[in-house]
Amino acid sequence: MSTRFRVTYRLRAADEDEARARAEGIAREQTVEIPRELVPPGHVEDEILGRVEQVAPEAGAWRAVISYSPDSAGGEITQFLNVVFGNSSIQPGIRVTGIEPGAALAAALPRPRFGIAGIRRLCARPTGGLIAPVLKPMGLPPDYFARLAAGCVRGGADIVKEDHGLAGQPTAPFRARVRAVAGAVAEENARTGRHALYFPNLSGRAEEIEDNLHFAREAGAGGIIVMPGLFGFGTVARIAGDAGLDLPVMTHPAFLGPWVLAPDNGLDHGTLFGTVQRLAGADISVFPNVGGRFGFSAADCRRIADACRDPAGHGPPILPSPGGGMSVERAADMTAMYGEDAVFLLGGSLLADPDRIDDAVARMRAALDDGRA
Amino acid sequence: MSTRFRVTYRLRAADEDEARARAEGIAREQTVEIPRELVPPGHVEDEILGRVEQVAPEAGAWRAVISYSPDSAGGEITQFLNVVFGNSSIQPGIRVTGIEPGAALAAALPRPRFGIAGIRRLCARPTGGLIAPVLKPMGLPPDYFARLAAGCVRGGADIVKEDHGLAGQPTAPFRARVRAVAGAVAEENARTGRHALYFPNLSGRAEEIEDNLHFAREAGAGGIIVMPGLFGFGTVARIAGDAGLDLPVMTHPAFLGPWVLAPDNGLDHGTLFGTVQRLAGADISVFPNVGGRFGFSAADCRRIADACRDPAGHGPPILPSPGGGMSVERAADMTAMYGEDAVFLLGGSLLADPDRIDDAVARMRAALDDGRA
Repeated sequence: MSTRFRVTYRLRAADEDEARARAEGIAREQTVEIPRELVPPGHVEDEILGRVEQVAPEAGAWRAVISYSPDSAGGEITQFLNVVFGNSSIQPGIRVTGIEPGAALAAALPRPRFGIAGIRRLCARPTGGLIAPVLKPMGLPPDYFARLAAGCVRGGADIVKEDHGLAGQPTAPFRARVRAVAGAVAEENARTGRHALYFPNLSGRAEEIEDNLHFAREAGAGGIIVMPGLFGFGTVARIAGDAGLDLPVMTHPAFLGPWVLAPDNGLDHGTLFGTVQRLAGADISVFPNVGGRFGFSAADCRRIADACRDPAGHGPPILPSPGGGMSVERAADMTAMYGEDAVFLLGGSLLADPDRIDDAVARMRAALDDGRA
Repeated sequence: MSTRFRVTYRLRAADEDEARARAEGIAREQTVEIPRELVPPGHVEDEILGRVEQVAPEAGAWRAVISYSPDSAGGEITQFLNVVFGNSSIQPGIRVTGIEPGAALAAALPRPRFGIAGIRRLCARPTGGLIAPVLKPMGLPPDYFARLAAGCVRGGADIVKEDHGLAGQPTAPFRARVRAVAGAVAEENARTGRHALYFPNLSGRAEEIEDNLHFAREAGAGGIIVMPGLFGFGTVARIAGDAGLDLPVMTHPAFLGPWVLAPDNGLDHGTLFGTVQRLAGADISVFPNVGGRFGFSAADCRRIADACRDPAGHGPPILPSPGGGMSVERAADMTAMYGEDAVFLLGGSLLADPDRIDDAVARMRAALDDGRA
């Protein structure tokens, strides 16, 4: 029985009877999708049909815990998420607030290949917050990004991250850009003795993704950015599970907004940007920081960071990566809020003078180290 | 200029100044993602930076039309959607209500390969509504689904559709199931002179998808179901663009719910289940029918059907496919609402007696034909 996976839903319902009926409805909807009286006896009724384990009041709504057979998910992340919330995601007033994969699925799903310890080892930053300046804007040529990246390495960047909008623009196609930037980062690492990792943004037509992944690896990328909202969490798991490719994955929240914005639908912040990312095998989870233009609260961000680093979660703890709101002035506050096990994205403000980005990154590094006190 | 693509957003804003500032913010966020004063002159400022074309009041909110360079999207659907709404999807109070791809992107994106006319030709149903009974529940063996499928063909099904929850369950792994069902459908088609199409549900690990697609084609599948909410719209485009594979695509709404549920976020119903599906290359778009358990209104459903069939849309008109709420009693109403160019899914109620599903499908076929008057 401990092999069953468990999903916690928050339900809108008028009373306990309605909450229980909704929970039973979800248990069918996510598995057999037929009326209760038509469920065949035996394996389907005993194992496959979702099982309502608990219904209880919770903060003006209802909490329902439903367990599912690992067989319903067939051992892979896409179908697992489909059982967690495929059709029920379309019903108003149901929000996923927790997922426990259970022993069988936890063993079948890939784990984050690197996690906090692995990323720290790769970029030789055993302690202190990590910083990741972002290469942008789209529309400029590869040698611009290469120069920018070299400056970031000189300044002390741990990860040189591409903007999630860099894709196949004709001014800087994926391969030309990756080759140029990876070369510049390797050269600057060699010259300075640093270990900055370059993370290109995975992009291309679906049929090009495999080749682009291998191209990035062979060109010298130190990791890869994936947007699961656009490519699917299966793409994250495909990379995490590949020992030959051996690439850290940073997930980006593009196109995932509606999943968290409405409080009665979707998944809660910690589940989507923490729990699910680890279950898919991400090593670093990017999310919008409090205080920026996205409206995530400090509590939302803390829950994400907690879910990323919870020692009881799936696989090794991973790095939360708040985007936006970081500056020399706020470095101490940010360290106080997130601790040191975080990747701080450094955005547009760094680009005030692209030729002096090394100084800007170095000032941020110093501010972060000062903030450790 | 006509090559630029245009996106219409509905914005929450206190007044026109705020609406305009939000629109300018989206135009930057979706392209350069840096402060306005740092945007490099030349190509980036003149072409890449999103351009606010219109800001006007609309039904208690504001409508903003923003145009983007086709170069920003690099000619493919995933990055196109990323520019349409990647990061802005995470900001509260922004909803996409229209997308016009413009000439350059319309030429670069695949078109629905079959559309209404192509699907009608394949299943030899030149007029009248199409019916698609659904094979379920998960947890039963391939020969159960094969028998069920044969009954559906005998009864006059146009498309024999797998439930979106059939994946890699150990009781009926993808390949064993597809082989068994495709064989049964082919045999029954040959015996009866019918032309029913079998649509298996694409599933598997990301690294298995390519092989599973080709396996399905070679086994005799007449089309394929894709869940873009889980696999990404790039997977739809990859299939639509493949002349060798030559498979119709039916898209399923699993895991897309939060995109439409909250009226101030995401995409509106017609845009997500109509416009975007056509831009990705889908031939049939499944969505939850009015009157069922999902809360879509009749107006929502009409807008979806209109967007699927708008003669001015991308590529040929495609088939809206309302799921749920269809019965012998409602056949005339459904035909009145959707017209004949629709695929009506027939769900759990058909399974009251799996051994007599042929009669149940035949009754639905007769009811639908009676309803034409």
